[in-house]
Amino acid sequence: MKFTFVSLFPNLIEPYFYDSILKRAIEAGFLTYEFYNPRDYTKNKHLKVDSPMIGGGAGMLMNCQPLFDCLDEIKKKNPEAYIIFPLAAAKPFRQNDAKRLAKKENLVFVSGRYEGIDERVIEKYANEIFSIGEFILTGGELPSLVMADAISRNVEGVLGNVDSLTMESYENNLLEAPSFSKPENFENLSVIKEFLKGNHSKIADLKNNLAICKTKYFRPGLITRKKTK
Amino acid sequence: MKFTFVSLFPNLIEPYFYDSILKRAIEAGFLTYEFYNPRDYTKNKHLKVDSPMIGGGAGMLMNCQPLFDCLDEIKKKNPEAYIIFPLAAAKPFRQNDAKRLAKKENLVFVSGRYEGIDERVIEKYANEIFSIGEFILTGGELPSLVMADAISRNVEGVLGNVDSLTMESYENNLLEAPSFSKPENFENLSVIKEFLKGNHSKIADLKNNLAICKTKYFRPGLITRKKTK
Repeated sequence: MKFTFVSLFPNLIEPYFYDSILKRAIEAGFLTYEFYNPRDYTKNKHLKVDSPMIGGGAGMLMNCQPLFDCLDEIKKKNPEAYIIFPLAAAKPFRQNDAKRLAKKENLVFVSGRYEGIDERVIEKYANEIFSIGEFILTGGELPSLVMADAISRNVEGVLGNVDSLTMESYENNLLEAPSFSKPENFENLSVIKEFLKGNHSKIADLKNNLAICKTKYFRPGLITRKKTK
Repeated sequence: MKFTFVSLFPNLIEPYFYDSILKRAIEAGFLTYEFYNPRDYTKNKHLKVDSPMIGGGAGMLMNCQPLFDCLDEIKKKNPEAYIIFPLAAAKPFRQNDAKRLAKKENLVFVSGRYEGIDERVIEKYANEIFSIGEFILTGGELPSLVMADAISRNVEGVLGNVDSLTMESYENNLLEAPSFSKPENFENLSVIKEFLKGNHSKIADLKNNLAICKTKYFRPGLITRKKTK
């Protein structure tokens, strides 16, 4: 899997690949990444990449020309490149998307800054648009990383232990049950006693019930989605 | 606002503060940040901070002792510190939370790694738990940054132009209308003509209608939430 990041601030993105799981995945050859900076493509003599919104509204918008030229070059090098825009106004990115997109060979994430991106760029180049949640960020760099991270976990080889992909939140439209590690008793706080008794089918039942309780409490919508599917 | 990050991988977090808006906010004194590494608190002679789950299940869980000692120290230094755990199984983090939490003086984000954190840590120390979306990440570092970034924008002084906070997605349970910048025509793609005519009440009406369309299409749940409030 190759991640291509289009961003005015690549140094907000790159260090995330310098440590932990993604670093190991890169060293092992399962992932690669590269950067394109729209500022390298601007024809504006002051190297500007943004201008005020047409029709009024506060703040600056990223212009068509630098992004058109940058994305044209990416598409020319790899016509199969699959271009994703993280946007506030888009469908939600979910675990199923992370799994599906992990099968692509080259994902391109285009990060907006300032008040966003001229709509014509999105209309012309987006293969998909996603929002990672109902909140506003200073730019598209973090949501690009969030998607790249969630997708990476589903690229074959990236996680050593494939088991750990199976029993986790959102995999079955259920949140995860509470988990405990040693010691059984710490500062008078004990783990759930049933977990200690070693009856694995009883533990599995209990975990499933706890997962359903947790989901009903925190994310009732997930339960409904489960039923209607 | 002081952000305190509790993480085994602080170098995945810190570089995000080295550039752009947050860098300026730090230089101007509106934000500060600090790190605590649970590994510095472990009493395990091999410096381990994790162990297998009790009751079975793949993967390792972060243990109580290092996090208890680390969070005790943070609370001792500042009893008002407000502790947040980004978790997959939690309520969704939303723009209203970003605004509300921007009024706190010290937010602590505790990042899990591996398969998560012993539930007893969360039960004892969490003031709030949040999920940023229905997907699984390699750790809590990115969701901690996402929340810190969304909250920062609402800390007074961080964004120069206060106007740009008012008309954006999720502020009114509506997504944003499409935006355009110069030139009016680029490679035969034109902006919406009405935006060029300068009748600001007409433009505002049109933008509102476009925002409603976009919201109905991408996030029908937002419209329902708007009505029921």
